[in-house]
Amino acid sequence: MSSQFQSFDDPAASNLGEANPSALRLAGLRRLLAQRGLAGFIIPRADEHQGEYVPPGEERLAWLTGFTGSAGTAVVLENEAAVVVDGRYVIQVHEQIDPAQFSPVALAETPPEAWLAEHLPANAKFAYDPWLHTDGQVKRLEKAIAKVGGSLVALDDNPIDAIWEDRPAAPEAPIRLHPLSVAGETTVSKLARLRTLLSEAHVDGLIISDPHNIAWLFNIRGNDVPHTPIALGYALVPTEGRPTLCFDAGRFEPVAFNAITEIADVAPSNTRNAREALETAITSLANGLDHARLRIDQDTGAYALQHLVATADADFDIGPDPLTDLKAVKNAREIEGARAAHRRDGAAVSRFLAWLAREAPKGQLTEIAVVEALEEFRRDTGLLMDISFTTIAGANENAALPHYRVTRSSNRPVLPGILLIDSGGQYIDGTTDITRTVAVGTPTAEMRDRFTRVLKGHIAVARAVFPEGTTGAQIDPFARQALWEAGLDFDHGTGHGVGSFLSVHEGPQRISKLGNVALKAGMILSNEPGYYREGHYGIRIENLLIVEPRTATDAERPIFGFETITLAPIDLTLISKSLLRPDEIAWLNAYHARVRDVLSPLVDETTRAWLVGATAPL
Amino acid sequence: MSSQFQSFDDPAASNLGEANPSALRLAGLRRLLAQRGLAGFIIPRADEHQGEYVPPGEERLAWLTGFTGSAGTAVVLENEAAVVVDGRYVIQVHEQIDPAQFSPVALAETPPEAWLAEHLPANAKFAYDPWLHTDGQVKRLEKAIAKVGGSLVALDDNPIDAIWEDRPAAPEAPIRLHPLSVAGETTVSKLARLRTLLSEAHVDGLIISDPHNIAWLFNIRGNDVPHTPIALGYALVPTEGRPTLCFDAGRFEPVAFNAITEIADVAPSNTRNAREALETAITSLANGLDHARLRIDQDTGAYALQHLVATADADFDIGPDPLTDLKAVKNAREIEGARAAHRRDGAAVSRFLAWLAREAPKGQLTEIAVVEALEEFRRDTGLLMDISFTTIAGANENAALPHYRVTRSSNRPVLPGILLIDSGGQYIDGTTDITRTVAVGTPTAEMRDRFTRVLKGHIAVARAVFPEGTTGAQIDPFARQALWEAGLDFDHGTGHGVGSFLSVHEGPQRISKLGNVALKAGMILSNEPGYYREGHYGIRIENLLIVEPRTATDAERPIFGFETITLAPIDLTLISKSLLRPDEIAWLNAYHARVRDVLSPLVDETTRAWLVGATAPL
Repeated sequence: MSSQFQSFDDPAASNLGEANPSALRLAGLRRLLAQRGLAGFIIPRADEHQGEYVPPGEERLAWLTGFTGSAGTAVVLENEAAVVVDGRYVIQVHEQIDPAQFSPVALAETPPEAWLAEHLPANAKFAYDPWLHTDGQVKRLEKAIAKVGGSLVALDDNPIDAIWEDRPAAPEAPIRLHPLSVAGETTVSKLARLRTLLSEAHVDGLIISDPHNIAWLFNIRGNDVPHTPIALGYALVPTEGRPTLCFDAGRFEPVAFNAITEIADVAPSNTRNAREALETAITSLANGLDHARLRIDQDTGAYALQHLVATADADFDIGPDPLTDLKAVKNAREIEGARAAHRRDGAAVSRFLAWLAREAPKGQLTEIAVVEALEEFRRDTGLLMDISFTTIAGANENAALPHYRVTRSSNRPVLPGILLIDSGGQYIDGTTDITRTVAVGTPTAEMRDRFTRVLKGHIAVARAVFPEGTTGAQIDPFARQALWEAGLDFDHGTGHGVGSFLSVHEGPQRISKLGNVALKAGMILSNEPGYYREGHYGIRIENLLIVEPRTATDAERPIFGFETITLAPIDLTLISKSLLRPDEIAWLNAYHARVRDVLSPLVDETTRAWLVGATAPL
Repeated sequence: MSSQFQSFDDPAASNLGEANPSALRLAGLRRLLAQRGLAGFIIPRADEHQGEYVPPGEERLAWLTGFTGSAGTAVVLENEAAVVVDGRYVIQVHEQIDPAQFSPVALAETPPEAWLAEHLPANAKFAYDPWLHTDGQVKRLEKAIAKVGGSLVALDDNPIDAIWEDRPAAPEAPIRLHPLSVAGETTVSKLARLRTLLSEAHVDGLIISDPHNIAWLFNIRGNDVPHTPIALGYALVPTEGRPTLCFDAGRFEPVAFNAITEIADVAPSNTRNAREALETAITSLANGLDHARLRIDQDTGAYALQHLVATADADFDIGPDPLTDLKAVKNAREIEGARAAHRRDGAAVSRFLAWLAREAPKGQLTEIAVVEALEEFRRDTGLLMDISFTTIAGANENAALPHYRVTRSSNRPVLPGILLIDSGGQYIDGTTDITRTVAVGTPTAEMRDRFTRVLKGHIAVARAVFPEGTTGAQIDPFARQALWEAGLDFDHGTGHGVGSFLSVHEGPQRISKLGNVALKAGMILSNEPGYYREGHYGIRIENLLIVEPRTATDAERPIFGFETITLAPIDLTLISKSLLRPDEIAWLNAYHARVRDVLSPLVDETTRAWLVGATAPL
């Protein structure tokens, strides 16, 4: 296979075995801390934008501990150290860290603050890097340390960076324009809407620390981290006046540079450091105003930004970045693009599913072969910019791990039973995310029962109609009802927001117990109930939805529903028809008819023939 | 009719018209405030236990403003004053207060704190009575006043009391034992469970400020407020040692006194003041310990209690009173009692409904006549201790007001259309709460459509099955789904907790968007979805439920469901059968069969004959 977006290298054991560097690195860090009179240091898996994906040079946690999960925190004290991880990573952390150096700690029972409160000596000075923690995180840390009489110290430079010899440089991928034909709204128009909100919030400007919001506002895209087309940096938008983009001017493609500089200033090309550029922009804005008040994003704004603002004699205001809400509601062009991307992606996925139906029975496939084939079918569209996240392809017991990612060492053959594939593509007009669970061979009655209950939940969400103001938390129970009745459930949310050629995980909308944001027309969400039987198999059925206005005779309130935009067959052999109500069967048949009608013209003849059976009415 | 629990006096106009006393009272209050250098005073509709019902001497808000709603706040400043009320009371407040003295303010847009922040002069001293506000309320007030540079002052005595000449004395109804045969658990056993929780919370004792919790813990009942059999007072429970009940010893019936004093101290009979008795008990507990730490209930504990604790050189700990959770889970005896009370009450309600079916068509009934008849049928049981709240009987447009209470001036004739009756009884073995909506004459197609959608929601909740940890917020959407689909909804929660011969509104369990507490086996909740068409009619169908454990083959998690304990026919003439699914029809038929089987032996022959038709299978 040609070079692919997804790699299968085994991250485990990188800091284990004979060449285990953890002990050395930890000793180096402790020496540095001791020189400065510090009792300890905290290393979150975070960059200064609180991103889900971080560039290699920000993987301090992995460098120090060997743990490569997407979330976790190390706490290093003079004589002990812990790596705190959530439930997803309990097994992985044991496989990756050296138990002689680090204690693995479960987040649910002992958050980092709690571990610190138990292990920090009295009156100790404990340090952190203020660029890697938000205001809320620092306050929790402060409180925990104050409880044991200690003090929290912000460091000007990160001690890991001082001892990390071959630390990768910051990414500087080219920044290109995101065409108006797909973005659907000019930066001038977006800026006008943003400024109204900033005025209403009584602030003089916004520091944008979320690279996704910069990408959306300025209609630009980058390539600084895997699977999400963002450029890492800052922007400052004064409520009145020209915005400043804090990126090295040399990173912009010429067309992008010309377009951007018509409406915004760009940090001079000798400014190699986004922080410095931001500081200059803040100072210049503050100089022009009497006590300027600047909004810092509560979710992604580093604590250090407060210091930057205060140094410029301005005030800060911690609150939501209004762009997060604006970006979540897709405009007509973005919706059109999402539909087009999903037709294209659905055709590729259907070709893959048809291939799988032919190949799997031969018994020669592995999880890696499946991932490679799927990416190849997507590449065949000629329009794939990236996969939107690392494909999850789990056979049988691996399917029971909702966040499983195959590596060369975990790779399983695709044997009779269940195969779960959760994947997505980045196209210039849209981001996709789809999960299909297919039977290999003849599924058991239990598998069909569970699959049908998950499907009932999926259909209940897809068909939900709800009034203005309804939150995702109010939709979530519909996904679980059929499982609950059998004493079953799944331990993740039902859906997350999705961006437009941006992150596949986007807020603030979500369908989960924690989804306290009202769903608005134009938001894109996933609908992915599941069921996991540990050690045996797992099931998940995922389509993306767009919230759309609906009408009803004599309706007294504005109502909304979902348009399902993901198009690919749902495995009929896993359905137990007697468990479905007539209205559920009608939904499935109508969905499958649409899949067949839309995709048939887009696929090869073999796939078209396969589609007929795969979408036959139940 | 004989004297009844419910009165129909018109509370409106009490402070209006020629003899309007508001101006005089307000002037008196302002004089007193001016003498003390105070710029204003806040008067909540609250007693020192944050009760839903308060005794007449605590009705300071009504005395001053004329407003008699069950929730509201007056804010009095030197030259202006406001009465802040929630959506239920917007019309009523306009009818009851003198607009020359008070501005009516809507809580949703302007909470009291916001009104204060806008109207309080700079650097003013603003006063409150610390016995009438909780810690959380005082903190919000403090914050709002600090924002405008003012200061908040706690008063030792309430200035209203100083000018309220004929202020009714505190109630001193006899306190009686609640028999173990219905309580189901001894105080000794309840105390042991409470003490375990207090130890776990690292506190040395609990100040019980919620009279419902005192009643539950000590198996006593009183009669100090309408419709809820509680005695107003305090108790102190040390984590080790004898509890103290802060009630005048003379108030206990001899049997109760003897039983109580075996396990607890009672304030000496010359202590006429519960606060004084509590102060003495706290001091005595604090003297025996080094820095005693006492829990104050976050929901009902007055801010003044903090001062009491601090004065005794003890520390306070604001948190939940653990009794609230213990009381919510009913034991086997209480559940048995609830079922018995509901059979008895269901028979009375069915006699009433049969009577209504005979009388309503004659066109001579009024809402008051309906309320009186219903109470009479309940009294006929010979066991009615009180009604559990003021009966809501609304004909047509009055039914559209969810919290309507008929008075002589609002009283409407029961004309063809809809009649909604929401009522309940207090029996020694249980508290009931039931709503039935009945057609008078032939209902319109719209009424039947709406009624059936409400019924579908009611059935969906009644049939819900859910795993351990599920909250009421996760059940609530099931009640609304059929209404949402038609662009309809209702603007109140689906269900509230209910006590055992205690308050008909009991926490912490509830079925609503705000219900963040997990439902546990033994909790009692109402299931009361509705629909209200303003100016026309209203619909609500309410039964009480008990959470019960369920089983399912291969269940992986403990699951629960609801037992419906309310028994009375649901009006079949309001149902549009074509809107119901087979499983919904099956539920209704099974429910009606149970109603007929259980109630037939308990009612007169005429009602029995009526029941046959009223519970006929659909």
